[in-house]
Amino acid sequence: MQTIEIMKKFVEPQSVAIIGATRQSGEFSLNLVEHLLSYGYKGKIYPVNPNASEIAGVKAYPSVKDIEEPVDLAVIMTPRNTVPDILRQCAEKEIVCASIIAQGFNDARDEEGRRLYNDILDVIKATGIRVLGPNTFGSANAFINFSSSFARIALDKNPVGIICQTGLFFHGFPEFRFTGKCIDLGNNCDIDFADGLEYYENDPEVKVIGLHIEGMKDPARFLQVARRVAMKKPIVALKTGRSEQGARALQSHTGSLAGKDALWDIALRNAGIIRVNEQEEFLDTIRMFTIAPLMKNKRVAISTFSGGAGIMAMDVLQNSGIEISKLSKATGEKLESLAPGWLNVSNPVDYWPIMMGHPNQMLVMRDIMDILLSDEELGGAIYMQVIFQPKVGEGMRMFLNNLVDRHPEKPFMSALPGTYNSETIIGLQQDGKTLAFPTPERAARAFARLWQYSKLRGGL
Amino acid sequence: MQTIEIMKKFVEPQSVAIIGATRQSGEFSLNLVEHLLSYGYKGKIYPVNPNASEIAGVKAYPSVKDIEEPVDLAVIMTPRNTVPDILRQCAEKEIVCASIIAQGFNDARDEEGRRLYNDILDVIKATGIRVLGPNTFGSANAFINFSSSFARIALDKNPVGIICQTGLFFHGFPEFRFTGKCIDLGNNCDIDFADGLEYYENDPEVKVIGLHIEGMKDPARFLQVARRVAMKKPIVALKTGRSEQGARALQSHTGSLAGKDALWDIALRNAGIIRVNEQEEFLDTIRMFTIAPLMKNKRVAISTFSGGAGIMAMDVLQNSGIEISKLSKATGEKLESLAPGWLNVSNPVDYWPIMMGHPNQMLVMRDIMDILLSDEELGGAIYMQVIFQPKVGEGMRMFLNNLVDRHPEKPFMSALPGTYNSETIIGLQQDGKTLAFPTPERAARAFARLWQYSKLRGGL
Repeated sequence: MQTIEIMKKFVEPQSVAIIGATRQSGEFSLNLVEHLLSYGYKGKIYPVNPNASEIAGVKAYPSVKDIEEPVDLAVIMTPRNTVPDILRQCAEKEIVCASIIAQGFNDARDEEGRRLYNDILDVIKATGIRVLGPNTFGSANAFINFSSSFARIALDKNPVGIICQTGLFFHGFPEFRFTGKCIDLGNNCDIDFADGLEYYENDPEVKVIGLHIEGMKDPARFLQVARRVAMKKPIVALKTGRSEQGARALQSHTGSLAGKDALWDIALRNAGIIRVNEQEEFLDTIRMFTIAPLMKNKRVAISTFSGGAGIMAMDVLQNSGIEISKLSKATGEKLESLAPGWLNVSNPVDYWPIMMGHPNQMLVMRDIMDILLSDEELGGAIYMQVIFQPKVGEGMRMFLNNLVDRHPEKPFMSALPGTYNSETIIGLQQDGKTLAFPTPERAARAFARLWQYSKLRGGL
Repeated sequence: MQTIEIMKKFVEPQSVAIIGATRQSGEFSLNLVEHLLSYGYKGKIYPVNPNASEIAGVKAYPSVKDIEEPVDLAVIMTPRNTVPDILRQCAEKEIVCASIIAQGFNDARDEEGRRLYNDILDVIKATGIRVLGPNTFGSANAFINFSSSFARIALDKNPVGIICQTGLFFHGFPEFRFTGKCIDLGNNCDIDFADGLEYYENDPEVKVIGLHIEGMKDPARFLQVARRVAMKKPIVALKTGRSEQGARALQSHTGSLAGKDALWDIALRNAGIIRVNEQEEFLDTIRMFTIAPLMKNKRVAISTFSGGAGIMAMDVLQNSGIEISKLSKATGEKLESLAPGWLNVSNPVDYWPIMMGHPNQMLVMRDIMDILLSDEELGGAIYMQVIFQPKVGEGMRMFLNNLVDRHPEKPFMSALPGTYNSETIIGLQQDGKTLAFPTPERAARAFARLWQYSKLRGGL
């Protein structure tokens, strides 16, 4: 079976057997059958539990072999010592795809774990069954209301495809949830990063690919596939295990061997992958790519309420290739025509003295931003405003959405610090038209990532 | 007059003249008289405006010289060309302290600005009046419900003293507001960083000092004072203008000359100042120091729901001096007694397989954390949990507050990622007992800063 067909069974299963489904019920019971029903999953659910006739009102089976219909995906939630046998039963039932949730295999330090891990590899070799994990949340797909994670998650139809090695990325943050689609490779004994990439490559529901990498079995194939995919969609990678201590811990987490970090750095860059340094930047970069158009040139204008905040953004942009350069003569003159006599407008544009004296400051602000966003010589603009009252936030949300409606082609991001900024940032993210971050540095860093990818795609 | 007495007039004024007070009213009018009344400021307010007999119900004066009573602080909010004359009138009225809000002096590029700036310096020299600014928000003090910023701000009695060069730090974020006390030096033509430091040095309301530095006139005096103060209270510095572009912009923001960044790096470190890289880290580090006790040794335990998240934290801790080292035999055995047979507990402690099989998981979690926080060989602990449901957040807030009540002396921080984490993090911050961050990296970085300062103070 082709990689893509196999991956579809993992991520778009039309039927799923839940082996070791719990009979416990309620909010914290980790009852996957209940979760799937509450998500609104429309596929067939087959709970497998020899001690139950039904779970959450769904008919249960004593073993996977007792299910009459064909099954796309087996989710194996039983203790580690039962897994090789159950995997063999799945193969006998002609199930092609299985997610192994249990841990305690090559990530454990006892001999038993190592032996059970080898048993899994033997079953794969003997039967051809494909395995996600072990030590995985499995897969999730917000577009079909599906997740095999035992933790109940919030599914959001974001155009994002994640491949990760921790269940952490099945969750998200108030301003952004990573799913879309998630594939947790866990200890990646079989299904690996390249398989996930090939699946996302031509997936119309996925616009951005995010990778959380601890280690992998076949980096060569991965880099080859990534180089191709990166020219179609941005690939953002959080490669962890940089430190010696971290690399040791990683071996006991997913049993992976971390390569030298500097080598990863070069390899990822050569493949056209955007490497990020930490989880927050992973979040910011991914959500940036879900919205921002590509940049046509490296010149960016910063328009700010505070000269100090503009400088913070510029500190981050150093060595990014982005230039906060002099504005064109025409743009400078247009801005100065709005300003008091003494003001010599430069970039960053300190908009406060321009609009201060005007009776309708929001109109002047709009004019300033229209001038900047219409300037063909600029590849993008950053806007900063402090949300010092909730009403300022409400006004800002309207102002910014309205602004990008008039300039949809121009890369544009905002930094909105302030005591009341959360609701505005979350609201703008929900509106889905423009990007807002809580600090100047996070907005600037996202812009640096956008330029990195725009260069790659545009040959700039 | 002594530095501290002068600074008290700026930060703890018992009477304030607002020169150029606006007659406009309402939410967005930037009416400082209305702001002060709404904050509940108990000092005397003297609006000065030749075109008004009262402002917001407070008697107004045609000029500062018409005020009969003595005035601690003049806040000059008039256009730049009027400032030198008004400053001279303030001196004649024997006002010792004046904040000049207007911009367009040495930060402007026209000759007029330069000339007006020199006029201010001349008045200072001739009269001895002390000036904060120009181009400043002035000062703020939550403990007396005072702020001279034209933007209405939210005042929080945090034990934090800020000295900055942008009004940005009069605001804050949903989880933390910087004030306490704020001194905006603006273009620091007179009052400088060392003056603010000497004021905060023995201020019982200030436990942590935060500096936002663009540039200063007398770095030698600053470093000398800082070296002394840093042994009493942590000083956290965000020194901006790292990039060449940024350094140029900075000159037009506050007229400061940015020194070579690497020299600043060495000088700040030698003075015992904790240098941070960006605004978010500034926030995190300051709020960390408002709560965390000092570390007694460099060994830290990480307790995590996800091995992957533990590795992210360790990546940040590399080169910090903190060790995520093997647990003691006794602690290891205590943890293993809670765990299933195959588990060989290491550090980071992956708590999920330990507590998974237990009927009351929160009790096991408490036992795990009690074991770690009681271990004398550990200098601190990091705990991680994903807030995947609002109820998990509520439970976590109780759990963590309860935990630190039992171990008040042990440095302890949490990383709480997840779709519903905001409310929990803000709530814990309000409770004021323990620190929570949204990502593993931010918690780890705060710990690295704590160790940096603990070493300095403890000679470790």
